[in-house]
Amino acid sequence: MKMITVDDVRAAAARIRGHVVRTPLTVGPPGSGFLLKPESLQPTGAFKIRGATNAVALLDPAQRRSGVVTHSSGNHGQALARAAAGQGVPCTVVVPEGAPEVKVERIRALGARVVMATPERRAAVARELAESERLALVPPFDDPHVIAGQGTVGLEILEQSPEVATIVVPVGGGGLASGVSTAALAVRPRRVRVIGVEPELAADAAESLSAGHLVTWSPERTHRTMADGVRVCLSERTFAHLDARLDGIVTVTEDEIARAVAALAHGARLVAEPSGALAAAALLAGRIATDPGRPEATVAVVSGGNADPGLFARLVAGQG
Amino acid sequence: MKMITVDDVRAAAARIRGHVVRTPLTVGPPGSGFLLKPESLQPTGAFKIRGATNAVALLDPAQRRSGVVTHSSGNHGQALARAAAGQGVPCTVVVPEGAPEVKVERIRALGARVVMATPERRAAVARELAESERLALVPPFDDPHVIAGQGTVGLEILEQSPEVATIVVPVGGGGLASGVSTAALAVRPRRVRVIGVEPELAADAAESLSAGHLVTWSPERTHRTMADGVRVCLSERTFAHLDARLDGIVTVTEDEIARAVAALAHGARLVAEPSGALAAAALLAGRIATDPGRPEATVAVVSGGNADPGLFARLVAGQG
Repeated sequence: MKMITVDDVRAAAARIRGHVVRTPLTVGPPGSGFLLKPESLQPTGAFKIRGATNAVALLDPAQRRSGVVTHSSGNHGQALARAAAGQGVPCTVVVPEGAPEVKVERIRALGARVVMATPERRAAVARELAESERLALVPPFDDPHVIAGQGTVGLEILEQSPEVATIVVPVGGGGLASGVSTAALAVRPRRVRVIGVEPELAADAAESLSAGHLVTWSPERTHRTMADGVRVCLSERTFAHLDARLDGIVTVTEDEIARAVAALAHGARLVAEPSGALAAAALLAGRIATDPGRPEATVAVVSGGNADPGLFARLVAGQG
Repeated sequence: MKMITVDDVRAAAARIRGHVVRTPLTVGPPGSGFLLKPESLQPTGAFKIRGATNAVALLDPAQRRSGVVTHSSGNHGQALARAAAGQGVPCTVVVPEGAPEVKVERIRALGARVVMATPERRAAVARELAESERLALVPPFDDPHVIAGQGTVGLEILEQSPEVATIVVPVGGGGLASGVSTAALAVRPRRVRVIGVEPELAADAAESLSAGHLVTWSPERTHRTMADGVRVCLSERTFAHLDARLDGIVTVTEDEIARAVAALAHGARLVAEPSGALAAAALLAGRIATDPGRPEATVAVVSGGNADPGLFARLVAGQG
């Protein structure tokens, strides 16, 4: 398995400049002892715009003309639609029948073509379209260009906080954690550790890393967590990156996730979706040690802010 | 009345660098046609840290030793406590008896001394302490150093968006609007307009600007708005700045403020307090024209995010 290098991440950073927000480091909830990297403030509300923008920028001229396709209707689908529109590339998103109308509308509003498919047939339909219409398939994480783009989050943190010692990131498909750990290990070896966080109810990456080989969990198991952005499993590619480069992984309970969403809203003025609150949840629950006197030593990535409005309203009202 | 100049704002920007967050420009709610400047992400949750940091940095050595005092227990009080602590200067905040315990605790946690006084005696007690203990009084807006510090918000917007044509800011005491309009008028005369926004229920600045002289509204009148950060009136100093430099002022209803808080949370992933949502409210309600095809031409400042948790939970649930 060929792995990406920090040079891929540096090249991605140059490519996506001007297309994405350089999110600042902001203070965590009062007394929490860590800083936040609010990727929830990116266009389309998640770090996914970085990987998608890098992948679209790397298309060859023929691919740029025919366009891109993906079968993610979540944060990656929206990000790809926006990245493609911003670079004048046609985009198709395969959406499962029964998906919330608001999600479908947002993808259409970003200029993408929406194709409906049954949930079981989504990936196959995307592959068929890629073949029949010569579209470039851009997967949400199992792709070196996407991983390199996500890694720019790590490069920015290293630039913004010379004193950072611990970077905490959520782990779903593992693209963000793969890219960030690649950057940290190369730029400040042995001085910065990168820790991943999963929900206890979707801890396939923790189990994989502990077993030393890729273990996948069934959708029935991973769908128990409210953190819908991390119900996917690692791929062989992201497993290889994390196995070689991630410094550790911890899990959090659903209650801890719910409390973190509320704490980020009331204490740090950020709207995070449950997946986006995982890193802060692990720190607030004490699963990862911090130095209260040196908040600049620990950075939690708030990876996304596309919370369901009803769920968010319940969580900030303290109604787990 | 001597007014501040853009050189004062530029000097303030150099002074506060490293002490405050350079907040990015982020996308407004879907389809809204404007960008946001989320000052809610500053330490202590509001733009006030800029003016307070500049004022503390300009103290002479004797004042630095004896310390600063203010009678604002709101965003300015917290900002001054943090700015003073960051520069090793003692700080005293005079707090009205009956203030919420959580507010008092936050000020103490920032290292400031808290002195209680009856609401009527607050300002007098602060002045007495200033005299008896030789403390420097740092008012929330009626001060050239504070106004210059707030103006750095405008300088940053001008740097971050070369295409900006309209900057929208809330108006309470008028410090932010005075500083931002000073910067815009000097840096890009006739090419950038600055528009202020007030609640209809606390529209003393709109009335003053229309009358051509300072008009104050009673606390009984201004306290009808939920936007508690802008219940104060202009001073002669801020009136003079706005009268000469602000391009216009509009008002919004309480309903429009409530809807803007919800729209910023669900559509732009930001927690804004009602005062902090005023600029977005005016744009979302159509009180100020925007160009939907050019969102980068209009920037709304989200001035603060210290919303009361219970009120915020009701507003995001749509229970105005």
